[in-house]
Amino acid sequence: MNVVMIGSGNVAWHLAPALENIGHKVAAVYSRNRSHAKALTKKLYEATPVDSLDFGELDASLFVIAVSDQAIEEVAKELILPEEAMVVHTSGSQSLDSLGYVPTDQIGVFYPLQTFSKSKRVDFTNIPLLIESDDDFTKRSLLKIANQLSKKVLHVDSEDRKALHISAVFACNLTNHLFTIAGKLLADKQLDFNLLKPLITETINKSLEIGPQNAQTGPAIRDDHETLEKHMEYLEDNEDYKEIYRLITQNIIDSYAD
Amino acid sequence: MNVVMIGSGNVAWHLAPALENIGHKVAAVYSRNRSHAKALTKKLYEATPVDSLDFGELDASLFVIAVSDQAIEEVAKELILPEEAMVVHTSGSQSLDSLGYVPTDQIGVFYPLQTFSKSKRVDFTNIPLLIESDDDFTKRSLLKIANQLSKKVLHVDSEDRKALHISAVFACNLTNHLFTIAGKLLADKQLDFNLLKPLITETINKSLEIGPQNAQTGPAIRDDHETLEKHMEYLEDNEDYKEIYRLITQNIIDSYAD
Repeated sequence: MNVVMIGSGNVAWHLAPALENIGHKVAAVYSRNRSHAKALTKKLYEATPVDSLDFGELDASLFVIAVSDQAIEEVAKELILPEEAMVVHTSGSQSLDSLGYVPTDQIGVFYPLQTFSKSKRVDFTNIPLLIESDDDFTKRSLLKIANQLSKKVLHVDSEDRKALHISAVFACNLTNHLFTIAGKLLADKQLDFNLLKPLITETINKSLEIGPQNAQTGPAIRDDHETLEKHMEYLEDNEDYKEIYRLITQNIIDSYAD
Repeated sequence: MNVVMIGSGNVAWHLAPALENIGHKVAAVYSRNRSHAKALTKKLYEATPVDSLDFGELDASLFVIAVSDQAIEEVAKELILPEEAMVVHTSGSQSLDSLGYVPTDQIGVFYPLQTFSKSKRVDFTNIPLLIESDDDFTKRSLLKIANQLSKKVLHVDSEDRKALHISAVFACNLTNHLFTIAGKLLADKQLDFNLLKPLITETINKSLEIGPQNAQTGPAIRDDHETLEKHMEYLEDNEDYKEIYRLITQNIIDSYAD
């Protein structure tokens, strides 16, 4: 299949070469900033860097919109397509409808549930690929490509994908911020965040191994009110941290009391 | 050194054999429940299981209290020691003072900053060992033992240890509960928590590698209010999850606006 990659950010950066590895041809890479597009084409075989969204004359059948969430609709509105093109976006938080402006019914979502950094190698085999399309041909085509890339492919509608995205925010983004808070509390005492690394690693491994509900430890699940109160007192000077501590702690107590 | 292990829980389970591996002798293991003590002595060379805290006649110089936080003071009150004994507890949240009842000034804290499970092998080499004592001889002795076990040994006073413990609660216990919440949100849609594993693993690895403040991603740090509002709306039916989401999100926004 001839593919056009629209966007040259982290997802495009890894997805475009991965598509070539399974035998597709990336014909063009679009970026508003042509030098960004060019950087990505250097990792590819014959792709041309472009800064126009007019693909009316191009021999390509799959258009992958891998731009920031906010830019998807804008791109969709400007896109000029050849006959029988398929268009997908790669976003976890945007519905299929955000491609409503695209001049074809062959629209879909191709969402890799992973975080990407340009500098870090990616193995798609274990990345869940969440596919959505209301069009049968598009759905079949996307599932086929996804199954070539990964062992974990699911058809997930926009509502379920939203649940997944929110879950991912809890499990990853909010979690990471709790690490930041931990680091700040340590820095206040000239203690190094690195001290916590072995504990964090072991805790996460255990949680993923036996499931978070079976892995919960700490003062809240022990109903150790003496320690909880000491901690709240310690956090007295930082109302936000104290409130975050209090709320999650209370939710732990409530969850396991059921 | 002849050691008495008081307690037979997860910490004692791993610490007692580790002390034998570096050449100390565990003479006795105490547990209120003698069969628990016996289970641990089976992992040791010559240790006797006991259910009395009267060690007046025993040839032992280090007493390690590795019981639950709430039980430390009770044990400390009952303990009958031979001459010149040293007594430590292994708790992250209890102050040195909690050993105030012990009939010696040779008291200290020997806190391994790690979570232990009986079924899981432990390598002490990389576990931070946090030592505290006001008594010079005790401090030197504890530091010596700790340095034989681990590459990361620190003298940390009770106040700093409290900061470490609270940080650990944020980074591990509260974090684990966010995984539980993520799992519940997915279960509501018949989606499997396992889908998130590759993302969680990658996120945590990146966070530990480049530091959580540099690794923050997601709608909050992007100031993506559209997504944030959609997520809050989705969480409308669960006031607790919504409030946890809102609070941490707001704290992310505030932290990076500085």
